[in-house]
Amino acid sequence: MAEKKMVEAITSMEEDFAQWYTDVVIKAELCDYTSVKGCMVIKPAGYAIWENIQKNLDQRFKETGVENVYLPMFIPESLLQKEKDHVEGFAPEVAWVTYGGADKLQERLCVRPTSETLFCDLWQREVHSYRDLPKVYNQWCSVVRWEKTTRPFLRSREFLWQEGHTIHATAEEAEARTIQMLNVYADFCEQELAIPVIRGQKTDKEKFAGAVATYTIESLMHDGQALQSGTSHNFGSGFASAFGVEFTDKDNQLKPVYETSWGITTRMIGAIIMVHGDNSGLVLPPRIAPVQVCVIPVQQHREGVLEACGTIFDELKQAGVRVKLDDRDNRPGWKFAEAEMRGIPLRVELGPKDLANGQAVLVRRDNREKTVVALDELAAKVRELLTTIQADMLERARAHRDAHTYAAKNYEEFVDTINVKPGFVKAMWCGCRECEDKIKEDTGATSRCIPFDQEKVGDTCVCCGKPAKKMVYWGRAY
Amino acid sequence: MAEKKMVEAITSMEEDFAQWYTDVVIKAELCDYTSVKGCMVIKPAGYAIWENIQKNLDQRFKETGVENVYLPMFIPESLLQKEKDHVEGFAPEVAWVTYGGADKLQERLCVRPTSETLFCDLWQREVHSYRDLPKVYNQWCSVVRWEKTTRPFLRSREFLWQEGHTIHATAEEAEARTIQMLNVYADFCEQELAIPVIRGQKTDKEKFAGAVATYTIESLMHDGQALQSGTSHNFGSGFASAFGVEFTDKDNQLKPVYETSWGITTRMIGAIIMVHGDNSGLVLPPRIAPVQVCVIPVQQHREGVLEACGTIFDELKQAGVRVKLDDRDNRPGWKFAEAEMRGIPLRVELGPKDLANGQAVLVRRDNREKTVVALDELAAKVRELLTTIQADMLERARAHRDAHTYAAKNYEEFVDTINVKPGFVKAMWCGCRECEDKIKEDTGATSRCIPFDQEKVGDTCVCCGKPAKKMVYWGRAY
Repeated sequence: MAEKKMVEAITSMEEDFAQWYTDVVIKAELCDYTSVKGCMVIKPAGYAIWENIQKNLDQRFKETGVENVYLPMFIPESLLQKEKDHVEGFAPEVAWVTYGGADKLQERLCVRPTSETLFCDLWQREVHSYRDLPKVYNQWCSVVRWEKTTRPFLRSREFLWQEGHTIHATAEEAEARTIQMLNVYADFCEQELAIPVIRGQKTDKEKFAGAVATYTIESLMHDGQALQSGTSHNFGSGFASAFGVEFTDKDNQLKPVYETSWGITTRMIGAIIMVHGDNSGLVLPPRIAPVQVCVIPVQQHREGVLEACGTIFDELKQAGVRVKLDDRDNRPGWKFAEAEMRGIPLRVELGPKDLANGQAVLVRRDNREKTVVALDELAAKVRELLTTIQADMLERARAHRDAHTYAAKNYEEFVDTINVKPGFVKAMWCGCRECEDKIKEDTGATSRCIPFDQEKVGDTCVCCGKPAKKMVYWGRAY
Repeated sequence: MAEKKMVEAITSMEEDFAQWYTDVVIKAELCDYTSVKGCMVIKPAGYAIWENIQKNLDQRFKETGVENVYLPMFIPESLLQKEKDHVEGFAPEVAWVTYGGADKLQERLCVRPTSETLFCDLWQREVHSYRDLPKVYNQWCSVVRWEKTTRPFLRSREFLWQEGHTIHATAEEAEARTIQMLNVYADFCEQELAIPVIRGQKTDKEKFAGAVATYTIESLMHDGQALQSGTSHNFGSGFASAFGVEFTDKDNQLKPVYETSWGITTRMIGAIIMVHGDNSGLVLPPRIAPVQVCVIPVQQHREGVLEACGTIFDELKQAGVRVKLDDRDNRPGWKFAEAEMRGIPLRVELGPKDLANGQAVLVRRDNREKTVVALDELAAKVRELLTTIQADMLERARAHRDAHTYAAKNYEEFVDTINVKPGFVKAMWCGCRECEDKIKEDTGATSRCIPFDQEKVGDTCVCCGKPAKKMVYWGRAY
């Protein structure tokens, strides 16, 4: 059977989660490998998801006053070197342009790994007075980091993202913007991608090169590994001082600006796969799915079937549903399997018997539930089901995460949990880098974040036993 | 006067067109120079125009079945070299990446100047049967060409564009797609940008490196210089053969695919400036303007003025107009001049007297015409005027172009016209490269295109006097 074959063609996630992931990526035609080592092609089915992510996030950004810009993809080496921590963090993994045509460049240029330096260079020219503040900019672009090992969407040498960069007259305003954008990301992930997230702060060890504070949203994949899903950084006035971005304030004093940056990347497509996918392939949340409903005729050569499917297609389109009619000359079972592999949230089946009874069959992708519905109630039922599916997917992901979140009071418990039960481990921490390093070395787990939502799971550091300062989420991560 | 100062701050176009252009670009805050030689920053006012261009074109593309994708920005040198003409055309002007972090790359990578080679590399893997055809892909990205002399929007080392790439089972289908996309560009330029274009074919000398045929739309700037505004290339099966992109046809024969590509770039923002701008700054066509209407209160501290302007703002927003309320604490004259500099198509002025009379004043940016309108008719009048402005701008640009399009029968007339009357010169051509080269050397003019709309302006080649094959548009170009 074609249907069976297609499903069997992917490895089950229980057998080999990494292989299952790769199989879904390739079979759902989200992306593919290229002749360019470490770089991928994002194919139409994958790029359409990214377009929906962009459209939705961009609107959320603009509602908070963000303006889009575009800065060069090249950074002169001297500019990258102006902020010490930043260059140390990024220089080892940048790609260097050394020739333009046949001519060797006088100064080599790196392909941007991130653009703090370029934004500061711009602001240093355009900001003079408090009247010029704040600047709340964003750009959608690709960046390059020369990674040794790569995986589709999760880690590649070039990836797509947005990077927001803002400057403010006061430290308070910068901190407020940093948190505001983290919340935009968190709401977006939960409402659109149906991915629940933990909001919190990174430890000093895990923060962004050059930042005073990095905030993060962390999500949990189906295999119990964590994924950093969006970060927002407060730079204080460090970059501004290094680049001389100063303004004359109302009191006529020359002051440095306070800076933030925040970003989310195509790795979120990887998160969608690993949070919602199953052994039949991708499962897309309706709000982000490029195609929400697929209408599949059964025995489409029989009189009236294709016409009725066409009417359903028109009705759903009219109702604002992103719908596709699959009238290709393939067997229905094959089409069902393909629609499942591609993660289309809802399938409408209609054959001669359904037509005679004035009904169609709706099949949910997320739980395979079938509903028989009268044709004149179909559009309303479809809209209702899409809303239900979206809500159920978030709840299921939340339940999975909660069921895989543990608390550990002492080190033995901690190590046992990390090793035996993949997931988040909540544990107290003294605040020392040494304990983070030891935990990483012993278990491979890292501090994911110091959650805003603190909870006292003990009194002493799970590692050294000294008095604890904070509760931290720990886990192995992508 | 602040107003006068702002207007005086830009060079008049009659005095120095190039300086006028630069002044508009900078004063309207469309873009700015950077520390990266030959690269620019596109600032919010400029990027918002590009976003509108993208949104509109992307929709037009998708209506013809285009799917968006994203391919790597790097091309391995060996891949670039597979098609002989192509590498000769582009290798001299590419940027080369030679190091990844501290490691020298085994093979150097160029930053894409265009992506035909990468698309062929992708198709060579994904296309097997006639069922896999056609592929109709597009990507929005930036490309790099290491230009010696650069100008904002018109020529920079990195620029933004879209590049469409398609493959087809037959030569006829590829040719039809090439022409179809040229027409999409032409309609877009005329309907959205109010820029009339000449549609035609490039001569062999001017065609794209590796193409069988290049089609172009050519527009005329205010100073009488031409601008190539969009191109569409038919590659035949040349690239496909070089890259081994073959498919098994219905007749079970292995055949090469036929390929096209087509692109439009941020230089169209330069075209908008140079076709519509005047000595007060930018003039934006309403359909592409990020802000279509600016509401400016006069004596805004007087009772009721700001409230009434707020009501107008709400009404216009409700009516689907992209409107801005300028309630900043500046003098109205300064705000008027700024709105003019930024090219906002329509301005609404309202002061205490207007309020008392239940009216507002509408001022068109394109011709400064003032209309007094009753407040309860304002929204309807604004919508009507925006439509009128759009149509008038196209007509004015067309009239300017037609008034600067000449015909020359012999070489003396041709050279005189080119030298004295900036614009297009229509003249007959024998089809020889030698005549094109001589004309370029003698006058600096190039063949802009062999228009689809042929017209017999003589019998013999304007250069060599031999029997003519085609009528050609000639001109100096950006």
